[in-house]
Amino acid sequence: MQQNIWFTPDGIEDLLPEEAKKLEYYRRQLLDGFECSGYDLILPPIAEYTDSLLTGTARHLAIDTCRFPDQESGRMMGVRADMTPQVARIVVNRLKNKDQIIRLCYFGEVLKTRNNKAKGSRSPIQVGAELFGHEGVESDIEVIALMLSSIRALGLNDLTLSLGHVSVVEELMRLAQLNKKQTQQLVDILVRKAVPEYHEFTAALNLEGGLQNAFENLLSLCGDADDVLTKSETLLSGLSSKMDESVERLKLIVGYFNVASDLLGIHLDLADLRGFEYHTGAIFGCYSAGQKLYMIAKGGRYDEIASDFGAAQPATGFSLDLRSTLDLLDCPPVVEKKVVYAPIEADPELVKEILKLKKSIIVKRYYELSEIPTGSEYLTKQNNAWQFVQK
Amino acid sequence: MQQNIWFTPDGIEDLLPEEAKKLEYYRRQLLDGFECSGYDLILPPIAEYTDSLLTGTARHLAIDTCRFPDQESGRMMGVRADMTPQVARIVVNRLKNKDQIIRLCYFGEVLKTRNNKAKGSRSPIQVGAELFGHEGVESDIEVIALMLSSIRALGLNDLTLSLGHVSVVEELMRLAQLNKKQTQQLVDILVRKAVPEYHEFTAALNLEGGLQNAFENLLSLCGDADDVLTKSETLLSGLSSKMDESVERLKLIVGYFNVASDLLGIHLDLADLRGFEYHTGAIFGCYSAGQKLYMIAKGGRYDEIASDFGAAQPATGFSLDLRSTLDLLDCPPVVEKKVVYAPIEADPELVKEILKLKKSIIVKRYYELSEIPTGSEYLTKQNNAWQFVQK
Repeated sequence: MQQNIWFTPDGIEDLLPEEAKKLEYYRRQLLDGFECSGYDLILPPIAEYTDSLLTGTARHLAIDTCRFPDQESGRMMGVRADMTPQVARIVVNRLKNKDQIIRLCYFGEVLKTRNNKAKGSRSPIQVGAELFGHEGVESDIEVIALMLSSIRALGLNDLTLSLGHVSVVEELMRLAQLNKKQTQQLVDILVRKAVPEYHEFTAALNLEGGLQNAFENLLSLCGDADDVLTKSETLLSGLSSKMDESVERLKLIVGYFNVASDLLGIHLDLADLRGFEYHTGAIFGCYSAGQKLYMIAKGGRYDEIASDFGAAQPATGFSLDLRSTLDLLDCPPVVEKKVVYAPIEADPELVKEILKLKKSIIVKRYYELSEIPTGSEYLTKQNNAWQFVQK
Repeated sequence: MQQNIWFTPDGIEDLLPEEAKKLEYYRRQLLDGFECSGYDLILPPIAEYTDSLLTGTARHLAIDTCRFPDQESGRMMGVRADMTPQVARIVVNRLKNKDQIIRLCYFGEVLKTRNNKAKGSRSPIQVGAELFGHEGVESDIEVIALMLSSIRALGLNDLTLSLGHVSVVEELMRLAQLNKKQTQQLVDILVRKAVPEYHEFTAALNLEGGLQNAFENLLSLCGDADDVLTKSETLLSGLSSKMDESVERLKLIVGYFNVASDLLGIHLDLADLRGFEYHTGAIFGCYSAGQKLYMIAKGGRYDEIASDFGAAQPATGFSLDLRSTLDLLDCPPVVEKKVVYAPIEADPELVKEILKLKKSIIVKRYYELSEIPTGSEYLTKQNNAWQFVQK
């Protein structure tokens, strides 16, 4: 097929009026919801130095980041492939006072080098909220609650919350004293969810009873949250205080949402290593009943990110791609505005009439009567006054 | 001075909460105004092939455009340095039916290679509206009226409209049969407003009476629109039918806004060649009384742009950079929302209470009572019910 040379690159698309209007409606729903929860909007630039875009735990974004030299400084710049590192940079360098809790939200376009559909859109419209300066379970809960209310603001219901905690696997690996190579191997196996390889790997570990048992049964710690928590009592408790803390935190989160939210269910997977490169604690995501394979929003704790910018402090947050989600959403539930046609004429009375109408009605200017669709109203001068006439 | 390596590049800045909130407020004002005037929002991507970004009359953007290879196709991509060519591409390739009038608006971040302050921000937040498919003076008037009402929606008043028409100089040059080199020289002189050079150049032309006279007095055709139009009667009328048409069009525009708008004044400059590379007819801009040197919004007719994408058709539009304008604008006239603090507790009654409050009030979650500022209200459980308490 011969391609029109004006086509946009693979995975990069225009939003035409109908979609753009829908986007704008839900954009406002989300940002208004963030504001009402005390999250302040910030707007980082679409491009900046790769030094700050790809620092520390964000170095995994290198492969996704479109880069070019800055003609002012000669340093490399990149188009953001994720807005989270930008938010962390702003918190540390521009906003943060010690011990303060900072709540921020953002909305913006990001861009990736390749069109890897398995990883989502190549040009997401990223919306998210981040909470800095609190390490307790309360901030995990606050951010998860905000994620759920944001998804409900998109008109999506019948939600399933998906939970995990990267410290569970991390702590198992530390207790088993895995070396660097083994650690990488195991992470790789878990990310790929390669079950037979996993069993082969753990069988060869030959650890003492409780720890070996925990490794061998880790993959069964996945499913309904209450069931998994019960099972983990036997399998994980007492292995280490860090492990107990992690499980206790998940218990508190599950306990909160069991009571405070009418979810379809809570799913817990203790072997989930999503975002292992940067997450440091509880991770979470959300599915809607209609789209069981599409995680609408996701997030987690990433306490290291701020320390990359020189000021260690806890952080947790979530984000979603409004571009990918748009197709799942209903058209905005607003009443279509009435359209009135008005001519272009140098008459102050007409101009006043138009200004008055514009508060509630769409006023289209017409050049010739033939442009006015049948059935619509238009303004025309009759008996020296501007009057509505039906066509 | 040693620079923090996390600083953003020269001319590229974050918008922190206060500014971002202001931006969001005026963004909605502008987009709502466009919608009420029948302009549909579209959202082109932040980057696409340079083939379409820099085509035809947009080739002057080459020097401003940050470029990198597309890893999917090997073709060059660029971050948009202006959204107008994207809008034209969308109209021609995705929306246009013959003879149809299309009204579009857009809002987005753009990026330039260099931080040339004389040319405005390096990372403008561009907002604009474009009208395709009508070549008469009515569409010039419609777009200028929309520009003026948009600037008023920003809270700026005491506006001066600035007008010009690139065909005046163009037609003089055609009538004088200037060769390519002379044309470039004259355009360069006029763009630099180099008065002595201009007089030297025109004195050497030695044309027949009326034409020579028009050239020699062109620079005096600048000032109050009515005065300039009167002067142009003597100097320009009858030189050619194209010239008469151009002056007549300006007369109609000035006549309309003399009657229909309460402007501080209308300024006309017939030697103005702003955007000569792409403009093809009436050009316009707007100043506010407080900022006489800063053109808040500008635009003009650019009938060639669509033909670059393979479908010749008339077009006119305007845009403004909301980032550069932000400092001139008052803080949003909204009443600060009340802030209420609510604890994180797994109590459905509390969750319901928070949801109810969120419609009108900012609810911040608190972890410890020490976080609640004195003088604010917070929710606490008393006698088994959630109640507001003053701190």
